[in-house]
Amino acid sequence: MATSDSCDREELILRFSETRKTTADICAHLEIEDLCIQPSAEVSPPKWHLGHTTWFFEELILQQYCNDYNRFDKQFSLLFNSYYKSAGLHWTQKDRGNLSRPTVSKIYQYRQIVDDAIVSLLENGIASEVAAILEIGIQHEQQHQELLYMDIKYILHCNPNPPAYSPLPLESAIEITESWRKLDEQLVNIGHSDNGYAFDNESPQHKAYLASFSISENTVTNGEYLSFIEAGAYQQAKYWLSMGWDWINKNQISSPLYWQNIDGVWYEYTLHGLAPLEKNAPVVHISYFEANAFANWRGCRLPTEQEFEHYLHSTDSTVSSHSDALHPIRASDATNQVWCWTQSHYSAYPGYRPFKGKLEEYNGKFMCNQFVLRGGCVTTPHGHYRHSYRNFYQPHQQWMFSGIRLAKDLS
Amino acid sequence: MATSDSCDREELILRFSETRKTTADICAHLEIEDLCIQPSAEVSPPKWHLGHTTWFFEELILQQYCNDYNRFDKQFSLLFNSYYKSAGLHWTQKDRGNLSRPTVSKIYQYRQIVDDAIVSLLENGIASEVAAILEIGIQHEQQHQELLYMDIKYILHCNPNPPAYSPLPLESAIEITESWRKLDEQLVNIGHSDNGYAFDNESPQHKAYLASFSISENTVTNGEYLSFIEAGAYQQAKYWLSMGWDWINKNQISSPLYWQNIDGVWYEYTLHGLAPLEKNAPVVHISYFEANAFANWRGCRLPTEQEFEHYLHSTDSTVSSHSDALHPIRASDATNQVWCWTQSHYSAYPGYRPFKGKLEEYNGKFMCNQFVLRGGCVTTPHGHYRHSYRNFYQPHQQWMFSGIRLAKDLS
Amino acid sequence: MATSDSCDREELILRFSETRKTTADICAHLEIEDLCIQPSAEVSPPKWHLGHTTWFFEELILQQYCNDYNRFDKQFSLLFNSYYKSAGLHWTQKDRGNLSRPTVSKIYQYRQIVDDAIVSLLENGIASEVAAILEIGIQHEQQHQELLYMDIKYILHCNPNPPAYSPLPLESAIEITESWRKLDEQLVNIGHSDNGYAFDNESPQHKAYLASFSISENTVTNGEYLSFIEAGAYQQAKYWLSMGWDWINKNQISSPLYWQNIDGVWYEYTLHGLAPLEKNAPVVHISYFEANAFANWRGCRLPTEQEFEHYLHSTDSTVSSHSDALHPIRASDATNQVWCWTQSHYSAYPGYRPFKGKLEEYNGKFMCNQFVLRGGCVTTPHGHYRHSYRNFYQPHQQWMFSGIRLAKDLS
Amino acid sequence: MATSDSCDREELILRFSETRKTTADICAHLEIEDLCIQPSAEVSPPKWHLGHTTWFFEELILQQYCNDYNRFDKQFSLLFNSYYKSAGLHWTQKDRGNLSRPTVSKIYQYRQIVDDAIVSLLENGIASEVAAILEIGIQHEQQHQELLYMDIKYILHCNPNPPAYSPLPLESAIEITESWRKLDEQLVNIGHSDNGYAFDNESPQHKAYLASFSISENTVTNGEYLSFIEAGAYQQAKYWLSMGWDWINKNQISSPLYWQNIDGVWYEYTLHGLAPLEKNAPVVHISYFEANAFANWRGCRLPTEQEFEHYLHSTDSTVSSHSDALHPIRASDATNQVWCWTQSHYSAYPGYRPFKGKLEEYNGKFMCNQFVLRGGCVTTPHGHYRHSYRNFYQPHQQWMFSGIRLAKDLS
Repeated sequence: MATSDSCDREELILRFSETRKTTADICAHLEIEDLCIQPSAEVSPPKWHLGHTTWFFEELILQQYCNDYNRFDKQFSLLFNSYYKSAGLHWTQKDRGNLSRPTVSKIYQYRQIVDDAIVSLLENGIASEVAAILEIGIQHEQQHQELLYMDIKYILHCNPNPPAYSPLPLESAIEITESWRKLDEQLVNIGHSDNGYAFDNESPQHKAYLASFSISENTVTNGEYLSFIEAGAYQQAKYWLSMGWDWINKNQISSPLYWQNIDGVWYEYTLHGLAPLEKNAPVVHISYFEANAFANWRGCRLPTEQEFEHYLHSTDSTVSSHSDALHPIRASDATNQVWCWTQSHYSAYPGYRPFKGKLEEYNGKFMCNQFVLRGGCVTTPHGHYRHSYRNFYQPHQQWMFSGIRLAKDLS
Repeated sequence: MATSDSCDREELILRFSETRKTTADICAHLEIEDLCIQPSAEVSPPKWHLGHTTWFFEELILQQYCNDYNRFDKQFSLLFNSYYKSAGLHWTQKDRGNLSRPTVSKIYQYRQIVDDAIVSLLENGIASEVAAILEIGIQHEQQHQELLYMDIKYILHCNPNPPAYSPLPLESAIEITESWRKLDEQLVNIGHSDNGYAFDNESPQHKAYLASFSISENTVTNGEYLSFIEAGAYQQAKYWLSMGWDWINKNQISSPLYWQNIDGVWYEYTLHGLAPLEKNAPVVHISYFEANAFANWRGCRLPTEQEFEHYLHSTDSTVSSHSDALHPIRASDATNQVWCWTQSHYSAYPGYRPFKGKLEEYNGKFMCNQFVLRGGCVTTPHGHYRHSYRNFYQPHQQWMFSGIRLAKDLS
Repeated sequence: MATSDSCDREELILRFSETRKTTADICAHLEIEDLCIQPSAEVSPPKWHLGHTTWFFEELILQQYCNDYNRFDKQFSLLFNSYYKSAGLHWTQKDRGNLSRPTVSKIYQYRQIVDDAIVSLLENGIASEVAAILEIGIQHEQQHQELLYMDIKYILHCNPNPPAYSPLPLESAIEITESWRKLDEQLVNIGHSDNGYAFDNESPQHKAYLASFSISENTVTNGEYLSFIEAGAYQQAKYWLSMGWDWINKNQISSPLYWQNIDGVWYEYTLHGLAPLEKNAPVVHISYFEANAFANWRGCRLPTEQEFEHYLHSTDSTVSSHSDALHPIRASDATNQVWCWTQSHYSAYPGYRPFKGKLEEYNGKFMCNQFVLRGGCVTTPHGHYRHSYRNFYQPHQQWMFSGIRLAKDLS
Repeated sequence: MATSDSCDREELILRFSETRKTTADICAHLEIEDLCIQPSAEVSPPKWHLGHTTWFFEELILQQYCNDYNRFDKQFSLLFNSYYKSAGLHWTQKDRGNLSRPTVSKIYQYRQIVDDAIVSLLENGIASEVAAILEIGIQHEQQHQELLYMDIKYILHCNPNPPAYSPLPLESAIEITESWRKLDEQLVNIGHSDNGYAFDNESPQHKAYLASFSISENTVTNGEYLSFIEAGAYQQAKYWLSMGWDWINKNQISSPLYWQNIDGVWYEYTLHGLAPLEKNAPVVHISYFEANAFANWRGCRLPTEQEFEHYLHSTDSTVSSHSDALHPIRASDATNQVWCWTQSHYSAYPGYRPFKGKLEEYNGKFMCNQFVLRGGCVTTPHGHYRHSYRNFYQPHQQWMFSGIRLAKDLS
C-alpha cells in the first residue's frame, strides 16, 4: 500500500481537524433558530452544511476504506447528500428547511463520530488514493465555509431588524485612485499548472489567444454604483440584457441585494450589522445582469475569465491573508475582497476530464447557464484560493460576495 | 366604571393563566428546531403561535386599556399580527418560517411580560368591556392550541423518520356497531342561545326548516375508508367533485394525509408515533373532497350544518372531557373525536353582526370557499367546544383532525 | 315504442332547428380569426362551442338511438367532449385554443350532418326518452349561446382597438328611482314546480324558512358603483372578503371588467362598441368579491338565492322578451338585464337527484366554491329562463353579465 | 446624396420583392385557423410574422426616410414590434395568440401598402444608409421564413391528427458511412471576413487558438439516437447536465420533439406528414441537453463554435441549394440539413460592436443562457446562410431543426 510519509500525514490530519473546527466555529455564536431555516430555495440551513460536509467524508472515505465503520444514521445519506445521483436518493434542495430533525445537537454528534473515525483511519497510514479524496473533502468543506457566510448573511437579513453576525465593528473603506493596466495581445497559458491542489474544472492548462486589452486596477465602488442608480439606469432597457431587464422588472430590483434606502439615506446590511453606505468600498452582492448593465453604462465591458486570469498573473498579487473583516473595504486589491463577474460562461476547458467515481458529478454537470467569477472574497477561507480558481453562479444570483472589475478593448 | 365582582375576576385571572400555561405546555417538550420551521404555507411555526396569541392580548387590551404599558418590541406588531388589516401591516403568512428571530427564548420573555401586565391590569378591577375582550382572547388562544397540535403533527411528520410527540402509547380503538338516528321534519332553532360564550359567527339564533333525515351514530372508520380505497374509488371520477378530481390527480392523493403503505401494510402517523392502521378507529385527516366522494360511494351524503347541530341537541351528548389521547379511537362518540365535514358552505347566519372594532375581521371575511365542520376533536381544548360551534376549512385541506359522519334523505 | 304525437314532434323539430340556427347566427358575422383563439383559460374559442353543442347531440342521441349513424370524425369525441369523464377522454379546457383544426368550415359541415341525422331520426317518431334528452340538448345549446356572447365579448375586447360586435347603436339607459320591497317572514317553497323544463339542480321543490327582509327593486347602477370606486373602496380592506382583497391586489383590479378610464373619463366596452359610461345603466361584469364589497360599503348585504326566488314570485315580473340590445340599460327590471350575485353557495337542494347516465355529470360535480346568480341577463336566450333558474360562477369571475341587487335585514 | 447605381438598385428591389413574396408563399396554402393561434409561448402565430416583418420596414425605413408616408395603422407599432424597447411599447410575446385582429386579410393589405411604399422609395434612388437597412430587413425576413416553418410545424402537430404541410412525399434518407476529420492545432481566424452581408454578432474577425481535434463528417442519425434511447440513457443521470436532468424529468421528455411511438413502432412528424422513423436520416428537433447527453454517452463531446467554423472552412462545403424537401434526409452533408448544437455559449466576440440605432437591440441583448448552433438546415432560405453564421437557442428548446455533430479531443 502506497502511503504518504508520517510528516505529510500529520500535516494532513492537522489541516483536516482545523478545517472541521473552523466550520463549527462559523456557526458557534448563532442561535439554533438561525441554523434551521431556509428563507430562499438557493440558501441552505446552516445545520445542513454541518451535516453535508460530514456526510462527504463518511460517504467517500469511511464507507469505502474503513471496513468496521457503520453509518451514524442510515437516513443521513438521504438527507445530507446534496446532488450526487450516483450516491443514491437525495432530499430536494428547496425542502432542506422543512426538516426539524436531526437537531443541531445531533449533527454535532455526527461530526464528532465521523471526525474521530477519519483521524483513526489516518493514524494507521494513508493510501495516496485516500489522501487525494481527503484533500478534496477539505477543499469542499472550505467551499461550504464561504457558503455558510453567504447563507447566514441572507438568513439574518430576512429578519426585520437584522442582527450583526460579527461582534467586531465594520472597518472604514480605503480611498482609491482610478488606474488601468494595459496588457498586450499574446498566446497565454490558462488553467492550473499542476503545482498544488486544484479542482478538475481548472484543468488542463491550455493555450488561449488574447487580443490586447485594458483592465481596471480597482473593483467598482459603491459610490460609482450609486451614480449608475442615480442616472436612472435601472429604468433604461438599453443597458440591460433582455433576461436581465425582465428579471429586474419582475422582481422589482433597483439596487444591490443588501442595500436599503431609509428616508433618503443609503445603508448596507453587512455581517457587522447595518451601516451607512461606504462610497469607497467595493460594490458587492450584485447579479451578472447588474454587472453587465453597469459595464455597458460605463462604456466598458466585463473581462473574460482568461483575461482575468492573465491579469492576476501579471500582478504581484498574492491573496492577502484572511482578516477578521467579513465585509469588503478595499477596492484596490487585485483579489480577495469581492468575486468579480466575468463575461465567460462556465464551460469545460479543452481536454477537460472530470474527477473519477462519484466525484464525477462535482463540477461538470453544472456547466450550463452559469457565469464565471474570479478573484476571491473576504469570506473565502485562508489558503483556499488560487489564480486559476473558477467560481460560478447563475446570472440572477446576488447572495454571494460578487462585484465588478471593468475591462476595455484596445483597438 | 362597570366592573365584574372580585369572584368573577379571580375566576377570569385563573382561566387566563391556565390557558396561557397550557399553550406553553404544548410546546414544552419539543426541540427548538421543531418550533421554527414552516414546511407548508398553511402551517405556522409553533413559535409564531406563541407570539401571536400574546400579541392578541397586547394589541387589544394592553395597548387600549393600560396607559403605562409600552410595547415589548415595536416590530412584534408586524410579525405577530396574523391578518388584522385594521391593526397595521402584517407579515405574509407563508413567510413566517423565514424568520429566525425573535428566538423562542425571546418569545417566552414576551409572553411573561404580557401575562404579568394583564394580570396586573385585572387585579385592579375589570371593566366589562375588557372582560369581554379577555374572554375572546382566551377562546382565541384555545383555538391556537388546537392549531398547535395540527401544525406540530405536520412538522414532525415531514421528517423522514418522524418522532412521536406524546410519550404515551396509542390506545386501542373501540369496536362499534352501525346505527342510524332518524329525525323528523321540523322548524328548528339554529345558532347560539346566548348562554355562555360564543363567537360572532354562531349568532343570531334563527329558525331553519329541516326535512326529515337520518344520520349515522358513528363516524366513518379507517376500515370503511380502506374499503373505499380498495374499491378503486380514487381512480373513478364519478364519485368526485370536479375540483376534487383535479386536486387528487395533480397532487397524487390516494389516501388520508398521514396514512402510509409500507410493503403492503397500512400505517398511520399519529402524535403517539407511527402505528399500524386501526380499522375500528375513526378515519381522520381527510379533505372535503374525500369526505364527499366517500359519501357518494356509499350512496349517502354529508349532513348540512343545521342537520348536524339539530342532531347534537337530540342526543344526550356532552363533550367528553379531554383525555391525554391525541388521536381519535372512538368512532361511536357523538362528538369530540373528529371534526365532521358538512356539506354547508361557511356563510353568515341571517342577521349576522360581526364583532366590533379590530375584531370585526375575526370571522366574517373568511366566508368564502370554506366548508363548515362540526363536532370537535381530540385536540380541541377542554371547555372550548359547544354544539353551535362552527369550524371551517377549505375543501382541499387535510391537516386538521377532520372525518366523516354520513346522512341520508328520508323520502 | 312510446312516441309523442306528431304535433309535439313538429314543435320539437322546429325548436331544435331554430336553436341550432340561432347558434350559427351568433357567430355568422365574426371573422374566422375571432372564432379560433382562447385568450383566457375560462374562455373557449367560439368554434369550440359550435362543435361541442353538436357533439352533445351526436354523443347522447345519435350514438345511442340511431343504429345506422357513424360518427362524423372519431376524434371529435376527444375534442368536443367538455368534461364528461363517462364519455371518454376529453381535451384539456385551457388548451382548446391550441387547435387550429378542425377548421370552422369543417365544424359547420359537422353541424349540418348531425342536424340532418337528428331531424331524420325525429321524423320517424320520437321515444319520450329521446325527446327528454333532446330537450336537454336544446337547453344546453341555449346555455352555450349565452356563453358565446360572453366569450366573443372577451375575445374582441382583448384586441387593442376592440371592434363592436353588434352593428346596432347602444341604446340609452333608462332613469330609475330607488325603491325597496319588504317581504315578511314565512315558510316558502323553493325550486322548480314540475311545470315545464328545468335542470336537475332546480329540484326538488322544498320548503325553506325565510326571516323578513327587504330587497331593492333596482339593480345597482354604474353611477352608484362609480361612487364606490370614488370613495376609495378598492383601497380599503374592511369592505372585502379576505380572498377578494388578495385577488384585487394580485390582479390589480380597480373597476368592473370592461371599464376603461381614458384621460379621466370612464368608458365601457359593450357588444355595441366602446361607449361613455352610462350612469343609469346597471353595473355589469363584476365579481362576487366586488358585489359583496359594494354591499358592505352600502351597509346592505346580498340576498340569498331563496330570498331572490321568493322575491321574483312576489312580483308580476315576466321575463321581457329578448330584444336586439346586447347590453343592459334598464336597472329597474326585476329580471332579464343582469344576473345578480346571491350570497348563496351553489349546493344541492335537499333531496337532490342528478340526471341519469352520462348527464349525471351535468351539474352536481361543480357544487364547490361557486356562488349562485339569479335573474337572467340581456344575452340569455328567449325562453330559456325561469324563476327557479340557478346560474353559478366562481367568486372571482367577471366575464358573465353579472350585477348586484341589494337586500337588507328587517329586525 | 450617395446613391447606389441603378443596377444595384434593381437587384435590391428584386431581392426585396422576392423575399417578401416567399414569406407570403410559405403561408399561402394554410388555413386562416393555422395562422392565428399560439400553442406555446415561444411559438408565434404565423400572421404575426407576416405583420412583424412588414413593421420592420415601416419602422426602420418608411418612418425614417419617407416624409410622405403615414403609418398604415398606429396600433401596429404596438402589435408588431417584437422587442425593440427603443421603438416604444410592444405587445407581450406570449400573448400574441390572444389577438384576433387585425385579420390575416388586413395584414396582407398592410404588406402590400408597405411593399409599394418601399419600392417607390427605392425607385427614386437609394442612399447607402437606406440600402444597408433594407439589406438587414431582407436578412431579417429570411430569418422569419425559417421561424415560420418552425412555428407552422409546431402548430400543425398540436392537432390530434396533424395534417402534412407539404403536398410532396417525404424523400428517403441517404445511407452514410462513419468518417472523422482530424484538424491540427493552430491559430485560426474566426468570424466574418467583410465580404458580403453578415450580422453584427459575426464580427469582428479575430484570432482564436484551437488545439487539435477530430470532428465527425456526419451528423448523428435517428438510428444512432434510437440506440441512445434504447440503452436507457434518458433514465441515467450520469449523462445529463443537472439542469437537463431536471428538465427531462419535469417535462417527461424521452425522445426528440416530433417522435411518436405507436404500438411499439417509432414515427416522426415531418412537414410532409407523419412517417415511420428513417434510421439513416439525421436526428432533428433535440435540445442542447439531449445533444450534450448523447455526446457524453458516446464518449465524445460537442464541438466549440470556433472548431465548427474552422471545420466548415476546411471542407469544400458549399451550402447546397434549397430543395423542396422540408425535412433532413442526408446526414453526410457538411451543412444545410440540421443546425448543430455547439458547446459554446452565445457571447460577444472580442471587440464586438452592435448595429447602431434601434438595431442595437438586434443581437447583443440576447447573449445570456443561449448556446450557439452552426451549419444551417433544410428550412434555411436559399442564400441566407454563411460559414460565420451564428444561430442560438436556449438549451431546452427543441422546435428548431437542431441536431448533433460530434467532436473528440486528440491528445
